[in-house]
Amino acid sequence: MSFTLLKSDLPGGARAGELITPHGTVLTPVFMPVGSQATVKTLTPDDIHAIGAKMILANTYHLYLRPGIETVEKLGGLHRFMGWDGAILTDSGGYQVFSLSPLRRITYEGVTFRSHIDGSEHFLSPELAIKYQESLGADVIMVLDECPPHDESETVIRDAMARTHRWAERCRKVHRHEGQALYAIVQGGVFPELRKQSAEYLTSLDFEGYAIGGLSIGEPKSDTMAVLDTTLPLLPVNKPRYLMGVGSPEDIVEGVARGVDMFDCALPTRTARNGALLTWAGRRNIDNAIFSEMSAPVMPGCACYTCRNFSAAYLHHLFKAKELLAYRLATLHNLSFMQTLMERIRAAILDGAFGEFRREFHAKYQPTNEAVRVTQKQKWLKAKRG
Amino acid sequence: MSFTLLKSDLPGGARAGELITPHGTVLTPVFMPVGSQATVKTLTPDDIHAIGAKMILANTYHLYLRPGIETVEKLGGLHRFMGWDGAILTDSGGYQVFSLSPLRRITYEGVTFRSHIDGSEHFLSPELAIKYQESLGADVIMVLDECPPHDESETVIRDAMARTHRWAERCRKVHRHEGQALYAIVQGGVFPELRKQSAEYLTSLDFEGYAIGGLSIGEPKSDTMAVLDTTLPLLPVNKPRYLMGVGSPEDIVEGVARGVDMFDCALPTRTARNGALLTWAGRRNIDNAIFSEMSAPVMPGCACYTCRNFSAAYLHHLFKAKELLAYRLATLHNLSFMQTLMERIRAAILDGAFGEFRREFHAKYQPTNEAVRVTQKQKWLKAKRG
Repeated sequence: MSFTLLKSDLPGGARAGELITPHGTVLTPVFMPVGSQATVKTLTPDDIHAIGAKMILANTYHLYLRPGIETVEKLGGLHRFMGWDGAILTDSGGYQVFSLSPLRRITYEGVTFRSHIDGSEHFLSPELAIKYQESLGADVIMVLDECPPHDESETVIRDAMARTHRWAERCRKVHRHEGQALYAIVQGGVFPELRKQSAEYLTSLDFEGYAIGGLSIGEPKSDTMAVLDTTLPLLPVNKPRYLMGVGSPEDIVEGVARGVDMFDCALPTRTARNGALLTWAGRRNIDNAIFSEMSAPVMPGCACYTCRNFSAAYLHHLFKAKELLAYRLATLHNLSFMQTLMERIRAAILDGAFGEFRREFHAKYQPTNEAVRVTQKQKWLKAKRG
Repeated sequence: MSFTLLKSDLPGGARAGELITPHGTVLTPVFMPVGSQATVKTLTPDDIHAIGAKMILANTYHLYLRPGIETVEKLGGLHRFMGWDGAILTDSGGYQVFSLSPLRRITYEGVTFRSHIDGSEHFLSPELAIKYQESLGADVIMVLDECPPHDESETVIRDAMARTHRWAERCRKVHRHEGQALYAIVQGGVFPELRKQSAEYLTSLDFEGYAIGGLSIGEPKSDTMAVLDTTLPLLPVNKPRYLMGVGSPEDIVEGVARGVDMFDCALPTRTARNGALLTWAGRRNIDNAIFSEMSAPVMPGCACYTCRNFSAAYLHHLFKAKELLAYRLATLHNLSFMQTLMERIRAAILDGAFGEFRREFHAKYQPTNEAVRVTQKQKWLKAKRG
């Protein structure tokens, strides 16, 4: 595993690099499609290759509950289990325990939580998080972190951060590093001083990469960006920086502008299944009657399988009829859009033209109303917990 | 459009042929995957090509209600709308009006029915059925027929048959035949005398193909086979014979043995989405715990995409997790199985060895319990009617 920084467009700003993994080279900045349950929803590995994605994310929490870590290990590990020969990053389960489990009890030892599937009780510690991720065999694995709600008091956030630091140290101690990189997760909520402490402490422990956690979980977007402004300059230049759970095209452009190399988010796949198609002008809702007889594709000029082969009217029909193909065609489009976005971002950085790209992108792209975004996120979390 | 009979294994028995359509040559006996709403559920046209299927079925009833015949026509017809360049057969809507509409009123003029989607009232006549199917532009279209429940009295079935005959004549009269073949539908329930009358009458009108309708709708399987034994010898040897809505692998082998050339059925796709995978030994329910750690594919040796790439355990996991990819992988397998079945049947006929194939097939294949089949069908129809 190695990371090479090829170009930095601005001092402290947008970066282009190369992450070499045992399962191929990943060009950064990269967006990782989410495959929590060992499947990027609706897609086969062949589809993911065709889109051009080189690295995906899976979740230890989900796989631990179902089918079970031992089962995946017996079946040859996560790559073989899901038939994906590209790179994989697994999240430790930290965020999912805090966002999906209906109940949890946290100590310095670890976290006791309940399954969102059947309510059964389970325990996760830093050591177990590493053990499970080693069994799954992803290329990049994450420390166990604590991720409290964004609107908690500074005291609560500070305590959570302190535990996250202790847990990170314990993760580092037990990790065997055999062909797997371990990344730490900076926490500290929206408090600049805490974020600073977290970045400095974790940097001193020398991980192979640094993630920024606890963002895009309901806080105002200005806070998200302020945390990035505070935190990113404190992270080592020669290591990958991963902004967890972000995001929308507009947030990714801003993350890149601040020096982020890696992103993951369920948004492009989840909104696809809700009929929201990404375009350079913003999201388009395919349910809208204006698409009912449109013979052009949803995004004219788009080179994805969906736009090359089908009219917007056909996609509209499939969504109205609740046909399963609808969700797959929309997912193919949205992930292709994300892939193209990342390729254009990277080309602009390598050309020294990212500033221009960023201005042009924002001039055209109509972001989704923030209130709508937050409501969607809360509804989704509630549905998952329910 | 032309049909060539290449070989007949037994006098009046299994046949191998070739149906030439404006969208390619279809080898018979053929199984047509069902794509009622202009999509074979979960699959893209590329998937269908990869399976090897050359001809699919779509439903005038479904497309009339949604997105509307005019819309499909404006978008260039059904082939272009759904991106499928192979052959298509459309059913007239007759069976759907009788199986899916919650209410219907029949006269010699036509049938007034209610949409199973929104309850709105609609009228379908033989002339409209042809007009709609000409607009959709399938390669083979069907006359409007009346399909009463299998357990109706002989009087009711006779009346329905008489209307079906009158309607067939009217369909034939208005059909323009431009690159489209029109098939008649033999009715008459389980009454040999009625089936005989129907076959003789419709044969006298000289259609381009003959279907047998009103079977596999709940009657005992011995009745289904008795109707085939009565009817098939009365149909012209040089024209394709199509057994509508059949069927299961075991029924197809028996249909072929009696001289059927074409089949369609939602069973392989519908049961796939319920986790029932077809194998040479019968259906396997992937939900069963015996698959939870099985590293072999569901059907070892199977050349389909699913079996080549994934373990039974992975498929089991996807079904347990209700992941959308589950339904697609199972559909790919079941339709590949059907395609292989038809290829083996055809090869056996051409080798003069169909009798042997038939014996060997039945020796291995454990058919699904008939009571279970009938219950499944009734549950599905009830669910569709809402």
